[in-house]
This record gives sequence, structure tokens and C-alpha cells, in this order.
Amino acid sequence: MIGHRPRLFQECPSRVRIVEVGPRDGLQNERAPVPAQAKIELVNALSEAGHTHIEVASFVSPRRVPQMADAEAVFRGIEERAGVTYTALVPNAEGLRRALSAGVKSIAVFTAASETFSRKNAGCSIEESLERIRQVLSLAGQEKLRVRGYISTAFVCPYEGRIKPEAVAEVAGRLRGEGVTRISIGDTLGAAFPDQVASLLELLQERFGLKGFALHLHDTYRRALANALTGLLHGVEEFDASAGGLGGCPFAPGAKGNVATEDLVELFEGLGIPTGIDLTKQRAAALKIRQLLQRLDAPLPSAEGCTPP
Amino acid sequence: MIGHRPRLFQECPSRVRIVEVGPRDGLQNERAPVPAQAKIELVNALSEAGHTHIEVASFVSPRRVPQMADAEAVFRGIEERAGVTYTALVPNAEGLRRALSAGVKSIAVFTAASETFSRKNAGCSIEESLERIRQVLSLAGQEKLRVRGYISTAFVCPYEGRIKPEAVAEVAGRLRGEGVTRISIGDTLGAAFPDQVASLLELLQERFGLKGFALHLHDTYRRALANALTGLLHGVEEFDASAGGLGGCPFAPGAKGNVATEDLVELFEGLGIPTGIDLTKQRAAALKIRQLLQRLDAPLPSAEGCTPP
Repeated sequence: MIGHRPRLFQECPSRVRIVEVGPRDGLQNERAPVPAQAKIELVNALSEAGHTHIEVASFVSPRRVPQMADAEAVFRGIEERAGVTYTALVPNAEGLRRALSAGVKSIAVFTAASETFSRKNAGCSIEESLERIRQVLSLAGQEKLRVRGYISTAFVCPYEGRIKPEAVAEVAGRLRGEGVTRISIGDTLGAAFPDQVASLLELLQERFGLKGFALHLHDTYRRALANALTGLLHGVEEFDASAGGLGGCPFAPGAKGNVATEDLVELFEGLGIPTGIDLTKQRAAALKIRQLLQRLDAPLPSAEGCTPP
Repeated sequence: MIGHRPRLFQECPSRVRIVEVGPRDGLQNERAPVPAQAKIELVNALSEAGHTHIEVASFVSPRRVPQMADAEAVFRGIEERAGVTYTALVPNAEGLRRALSAGVKSIAVFTAASETFSRKNAGCSIEESLERIRQVLSLAGQEKLRVRGYISTAFVCPYEGRIKPEAVAEVAGRLRGEGVTRISIGDTLGAAFPDQVASLLELLQERFGLKGFALHLHDTYRRALANALTGLLHGVEEFDASAGGLGGCPFAPGAKGNVATEDLVELFEGLGIPTGIDLTKQRAAALKIRQLLQRLDAPLPSAEGCTPP
């Protein structure tokens, strides 16, 4: 947006922060085992591309999510750069203990806006997930960890259908009550429509202000960039994305990839909103992990090839 | 948008019109010859899906665009339904004569916002293309044909880069001066960013009002739906789209498919904005033409599979 900013973009932030979730959310759904060394190289390449927030792994049950069984090895192997936050997803106190012994300083916790999804994904009710979060926070507080909260299925649930904005605001309020002020709102299926995003953001803005809220979008139906735009137009400043558009959720049938970091960065930078990410290095990192996963049979989901002058 | 409409959507139209350009813009770039009978069946299937505006073929030089050499046969073969406008693209007086003898009652003419693109695509300057349009209109007026005008490369040109909104408004003014009040603004490369779309629509709104203006989007970099959303938020009521996302332009290197009709219809209907298109029939039509083109090696670009409740 050089020069005159169109009226529609008046509330648009002057810069955005990308939270790169590829190593965790992108890989957790891959069946083929990915060696710890490849994950370490991916994280290092993402640091090199300019990311300041990388979600590295999750300390979940290796039985439920085998791909994340080597979380300790990955955390110990990565080259931590100054100014970069390396986050671990932790589902409960046991996960936190594992994360702490691996030297983790930033964690993400999760709940859902859909009761049924919470039970299928986390094996517990929303209320119980909040209780788990409370236990994690109580231990985390002693260690002065950074904490971020996810609210999954904030728009559409594979079991319950459309989720009301009020239900999301309720859970967001509970998380904030527990001291979790950085909250990522998840379109877990990639099925949200931009008016749903707008309605929810309006409500969150009214009730809490949007500071601290991020959007976590999937691109299943190619609406991720339209939904991201809707977020931008409301002033959202933080967006999750996954290198190469990898991702999905093992407990959300029909969910495909996260929005590709390359697509989101290209959109933001094209709009004149800096992200701090080097798109060439980002694309190289995405290409490398897709090559490893032998995902080159499908076209790369991020924009490749000739960029017009 | 059931019930409360979010603030961002205040200017959003209460219904939209899709102009299905698949049989013409979608197929013109295909190298494999498509039999006239298959084109006829595609047009009939699109009528059956509820389309009211279908661009059937173009009467361009068969040497330059061999795929359109059977335009007469296609027009003569289709089953014309009451209430449906069947349009032919005509580049010049010769094309119009062919169209008229095939019984065409609605035509589209074209120019560009980029001088270089006009020369590469149409073999003439913008000024000369406007002169050709004048000749076509003079003949068309006697036959009382419906006329629609395209302005190609209205955002980014493969040769000149970013195009200024003022250049587009200038050409739009010239077309309107000739009596062409239905104008489709083309993102020929699919490289536009939503703020460019917003800036241009603001300018067109100020200068002419947006009535009669349509957006013609391509999905090369997966920004078509974000750009369509931007159009909606400004009150644009007409959008071009191509069944199955087929398309591209032989004279625009790097251009990939038009936005898929299925994606656009799903977006609009999901937003509660009726299109009149039966999505199941539309998907069947798209699938059939893609099967014929043996394009099933690549995943269907439109949303398929489980739609959440």
C-alpha cells in the first residue's frame, strides 16, 4: 500500500507477525516418519528465513501422535537464535514436565469452542481442558514461561457444524481469566467464511479488544487468504501459518493444510505490510520439507514461478 | 449472513450475478482439441446448473486461437434457454459478422489497460482496440445486440508490471463514452492484491459509480477469493468465473486458471448471498470437462469432498 491507502484498509495494521507452526502443526499429521534431524534443519531454516515465532513440536502422547515422539530431541537439536521464540505445544502437566526438561521457555496450550471436537481431539470436555490448562499454567508460572492459547474449531466443527461467535468469546474469556492473553483463534477445518470471521472479530473487539488475538487459518476450501484479509481489515496483527501449506488435524476429518506461510507472506508484503520474512528463504525451506515428504507429486501449494515485475 | 450482518459487510450486495466464462476463456488456452459436441454439452450443463450469463465462444482468428475455430458450430448446437444470455467474444468487425450469422445476440468486446499487453494480445494499441470496438458497436447497434466490454491487465501486466488505477479508469471512461456500460475489469495474471482492487474500485465508484462494473479474476496465486471479497465489500454485483477453474491466456505468460465458478459460488452462498447456481450440478459440469481434458492428474481446483454440516 504505497501512498494512498484505500478506505477499506483504514484499520489495517502497519505490520504483522507470523507464527510459523509448520514443524508442529504441519508435520503432526504426516504418516511417514520424519527424522528428528530433518525437523531440526527445518526449524533452523525457518529461523534463517527471519521468523521470530516458531512452534517447534508438541509434547503430546507419542501413542496418540507418533510423529511428535521425538520432541525432546528436536528441541535439544535446534540452534536457538536471539530474538526468536521457540514454542512447544503442551496438552497437560505431563507434557509440560517433558517440555521443561527439554529447556522449553515458551508453551502453547489448547482448548476448543466445540464440545464434541474437544472430546474427540483432546479426549476431554472444554471444562476439563480448561482445568488441564490451569494445572499447566500453575506449573508454568513458577518457570516464567511465555504462554499462548489455541481455541480450535472456532468457526466450524466437523461434528457440530457452525459454531456461534458467543461460544468462542466465552472460551476466550475463560482463557483470559486464567491469564492467557495471547489467543489464537483456529479455523481448524478451513471451512470458515469471511462473514463468520468478521462477526467473531467484532464480538471479540467489543468484549476484549483485539490485542493479543491471532488467527490460525487452514486453506481446505481456498478461503484462507480471504479470511486472513478479513482479519487484517479488523486490525488483527498475528497470523499462524505453516511452511509449504503442510498440515491438517488427525482428529478433524476433512481438514487439509494450514495456510501456506509463503502465501500469507506474499499477501501481506504485497499489501505493503512487512512480515520480516525473507520469501526466497521461506520458499526454499518449504520446498526442502516437501521434497523430504515426497509431496512433490502434488503441485506446491505456494506461489512459485514467475512473479510479474 | 443470517441475522446480524457484520459492519465490514454493510456495502455487500444482497445478490450477485456470475458470468460463466468457462466455455470461452476456460477452453481457449487448452492445447488439446475439444470436440464441438463436448463444448455444446458443457454449455447445456451450465444452463442446467442455473447460469443466466454464459460466454460460449469467441469469433477470433482460428489461426491465432485454434481452439475457438468451431465457434459457429458450438453456437448453432447449444440449446438456448429462455432467460439465459449466451455471449460471444468478438475482436473486430469480421468476428462480429461471423457471430451475427451464427445468430448471436450478445457480444463481448475487449481492450486492455496496458499498452504492451494490448499489442501482444490483440496485435494493436489500446487506441486501435477502441477504434475496432467502435466499428463493432456501429454494426452491433443496428442488430440491437447486448454488449459487454473487457479491460484486461487492469492490475498487473506481464510486460509493464503494476498498472495505475487512473489508467484503468481512463479506458473505462472511453468505453462508457462509446456506450459500453457493462465493463468487466480483468486481473488477467491473477497477480492483483486486494488493496489494488480496493483502490481501483474506489476510483471507479467516485468517477462513474460501480453499477455495471464486474470483476474478472484469476487464481494464479490463490488470491482470487480475497480479491472477490474485496469486490463484494465495495458492492460489486457481477463476477466472471470459469467452470473447474480452467483458463489462462495464451498471450499472458504465467497466467493460470480463472477463478473456479465452484469456489466463487461456494463463497457467495456461504456468505448468504444467492447466486442462483446449483452447486452440485455446477461441480458435475466442471468434473466432466476436466475429465475430458484429462486434467484429473492434478487435483480438482474446486472444493470437493466432505462439506461440514
